[in-house]
Amino acid sequence: MKKEENFSEWYNEIVEKANLTDKRYPVKGMNVWTGYGWKIMLLIDSFIRKEFDATGHDEVCFPLLVPETEFKKEKDHIKGFDAEVYWVTHAGVNPLDVRLLLRPTSETAMYPIFSLWVRSHTDLPLKTYQIVNTFRYETKMTRAFIRVREIHFFESHTCHVDEEDAQRQVEEDFAILEKLAERLCVPYLLLKRTDWDKFPGAYYTVGVDTTLPDGRSLQLGSIHHYRENFSRPFEIKYEDPAGEMRYAHQTTFGMSERLVGAVVGVHGDDKGLILPPDIAPFQIVIIPILAKGKVEEVEREARALRDELVREGIRTKLDERDERPGSKFYDWEIKGVPLRLEIGSRDIKQGVVTYARRDSLEKGTVPRTSVAGEVRSLLASISKDIFEKAKAYFRNSIADVESLDNLPRKIIRFGWCGSEECGHRFEELTELKLLGTPYPAEEFSGKCVVCGKETSQVAYGARAM
Amino acid sequence: MKKEENFSEWYNEIVEKANLTDKRYPVKGMNVWTGYGWKIMLLIDSFIRKEFDATGHDEVCFPLLVPETEFKKEKDHIKGFDAEVYWVTHAGVNPLDVRLLLRPTSETAMYPIFSLWVRSHTDLPLKTYQIVNTFRYETKMTRAFIRVREIHFFESHTCHVDEEDAQRQVEEDFAILEKLAERLCVPYLLLKRTDWDKFPGAYYTVGVDTTLPDGRSLQLGSIHHYRENFSRPFEIKYEDPAGEMRYAHQTTFGMSERLVGAVVGVHGDDKGLILPPDIAPFQIVIIPILAKGKVEEVEREARALRDELVREGIRTKLDERDERPGSKFYDWEIKGVPLRLEIGSRDIKQGVVTYARRDSLEKGTVPRTSVAGEVRSLLASISKDIFEKAKAYFRNSIADVESLDNLPRKIIRFGWCGSEECGHRFEELTELKLLGTPYPAEEFSGKCVVCGKETSQVAYGARAM
Repeated sequence: MKKEENFSEWYNEIVEKANLTDKRYPVKGMNVWTGYGWKIMLLIDSFIRKEFDATGHDEVCFPLLVPETEFKKEKDHIKGFDAEVYWVTHAGVNPLDVRLLLRPTSETAMYPIFSLWVRSHTDLPLKTYQIVNTFRYETKMTRAFIRVREIHFFESHTCHVDEEDAQRQVEEDFAILEKLAERLCVPYLLLKRTDWDKFPGAYYTVGVDTTLPDGRSLQLGSIHHYRENFSRPFEIKYEDPAGEMRYAHQTTFGMSERLVGAVVGVHGDDKGLILPPDIAPFQIVIIPILAKGKVEEVEREARALRDELVREGIRTKLDERDERPGSKFYDWEIKGVPLRLEIGSRDIKQGVVTYARRDSLEKGTVPRTSVAGEVRSLLASISKDIFEKAKAYFRNSIADVESLDNLPRKIIRFGWCGSEECGHRFEELTELKLLGTPYPAEEFSGKCVVCGKETSQVAYGARAM
Repeated sequence: MKKEENFSEWYNEIVEKANLTDKRYPVKGMNVWTGYGWKIMLLIDSFIRKEFDATGHDEVCFPLLVPETEFKKEKDHIKGFDAEVYWVTHAGVNPLDVRLLLRPTSETAMYPIFSLWVRSHTDLPLKTYQIVNTFRYETKMTRAFIRVREIHFFESHTCHVDEEDAQRQVEEDFAILEKLAERLCVPYLLLKRTDWDKFPGAYYTVGVDTTLPDGRSLQLGSIHHYRENFSRPFEIKYEDPAGEMRYAHQTTFGMSERLVGAVVGVHGDDKGLILPPDIAPFQIVIIPILAKGKVEEVEREARALRDELVREGIRTKLDERDERPGSKFYDWEIKGVPLRLEIGSRDIKQGVVTYARRDSLEKGTVPRTSVAGEVRSLLASISKDIFEKAKAYFRNSIADVESLDNLPRKIIRFGWCGSEECGHRFEELTELKLLGTPYPAEEFSGKCVVCGKETSQVAYGARAM
């Protein structure tokens, strides 16, 4: 498993060996969440709930199935998804009068109801989110968590009195994103997508991209400002204080199980996963080191240690399987448990516990009497260190270029005049995706890498994963 | 809203007025979970997770879509669901090679994978559960939470070395059920379903039934022992310690959003919902009683009280809307908040907080200095009292009968010889459903209410909701 040599193979092997998912389900691109993988996802969901609840969003849950009639209301939207949706055409043996589609995202499920919920300016802002399964018939090669056909997804949907208030929501979404990314220790770029690549129906789209080895970018999610593009066809109107009827301005923010894929890809190494402590199903694994004549004592101490850490609210696994310690070390390294504790009769005699960090592989001892506090600060320092390491890698994955010759295998940053023509030409010449322009804009002065015109706009391009 | 006069109308009105759901979604039987309703469901889900995790079940998540080929493997199963499943036939504009159905329940999604997971007796027991959306094309009249077409659902699936170990799992499920029901303060009967009514493919099915006004029963969930009925067609086999290949024995346990319907139906009264404190989104609502010249002081005190209760981990809402207190009382009574606190300048002067219990409508005061402890014990006593009240109502909803003439509008308990003929005859004559026989069996000696033969078996019948 060589991450830097063949990232794609490494990734596929690691998600399987760590048992995050089972890809043998008999529908392509629809994978089984194993207990271990699902627990990571649920921990991520719990942070999503925390941030959205704290910013006054209501968690709701809308139906999965959308009538074709509603789906067709926003023209760009249906064009964007037409080739990608699954259609329910029959119930039992009878054909349905109106075909139903499996939501690829929930605009067309939610907005007919939003038009009933929003009546007056006092109903605004309306801030909602949901955590659901969505469906896209991906035609590209599928990949666990990164490109699947049933997608675990959160999506927030908001309605506002005007464009400015919707813009404030976009800024709040950036703040929420920053907190989530900190839990995952994953750095990212905010890039305003090009007009030909924005979400179908959006006024503008900001993509959230991280970097993977080999110059690849991975879109983690996106934040959209819709202006009145959906509120007009779906008639989401309110009466303003002067008694005038106005259309609401809307935003959405969505991220998916790709977050799990990003955690795997950003932090993992040739030994396996490295999980950020906040989302590790087990933050600690305890391995008893049994020696003849001391078995019972060590087992008793290991259990006492486990019980103490669990009481302290630290997610702890005691591995009592009948295996050699070395083989246990190997298993939990693949699974990315941030911190391993070993306890043997020598540790007991010396009043210490031995630890090994998964990220740096560094080993040491901590006093048994203050173990909970010590473990907590080790976990905090693991979070900090893997985030710093990821940020350094991230910075080093981005290269400024002034011409399209001899491009490095990195995410490239270059001058772009902003014309659609040069944008398309860039994509043809490089076979990279034009990811967009920084949001907010970065200061720049230079030349368009395609046409050579002076420009103050910089853009990013990459091989998108 | 008269619950005892017309339960059905009362129910429909109350779920709407309490804003638990929005039934205006443009697909019949697929309703929108509002923030308030969904929060109740999520609290119930959190208790489900707690109990299943504590008994060593792994939470997993399997795909929604099941290939027709897998679905057809167990013959009784497909017969049972044939008229009820939704079919996905197209992706984009292309017809699928193999049609996919939306899971009505997940046996046929999970068991092809279980056959890969289960290899040896050391892999057993395999204990899993998931909390997902499922789909049934109901042809009967739909009703919020009780009969819907997209169903929020938990289902546990287990594999065991033999029938006895599977039976032990069934007993464990009963213990889990008891703890869940205690949170909801909902009493229930365990009834072994008749052979013609058991789950398609099951060896036996135990239904979990509660009572609603007007002699109706409501099935809350069911627990199934499958023996080898699914493991044979799906080839879930293991090598026993002697090296022999054996089929696993399986069980499932499932309950749905009907639990929310049961809470509404069992506890509510003519003023609205009464929510059990464990699952109330807000356990406490604080209403400031503002009087001229004292507004700021009262508002300050009300916020301090809210902050203190929130710090104590009590789910608390401070209602600062610009409305009369009476109108606020009315709103929160409909929504079933278990305990209302009022705070006005007289309360402040006297160093007390006024409370009103939603269940008994009893009012009183508690000292401000010990408010958190007092509130906690009031909530505990509300849980206890509504459970006792529900149990008394439940007992009184069941009547022993010795003939089928002049049946009371209750759940009836009667002698049954156990023959299928008498069972069907009972259902024809009474237009009731034969719910089954108590599990475990109740002592009885009497005559079959249909054929008059002596029998030691008792059965229950009711108008099923």
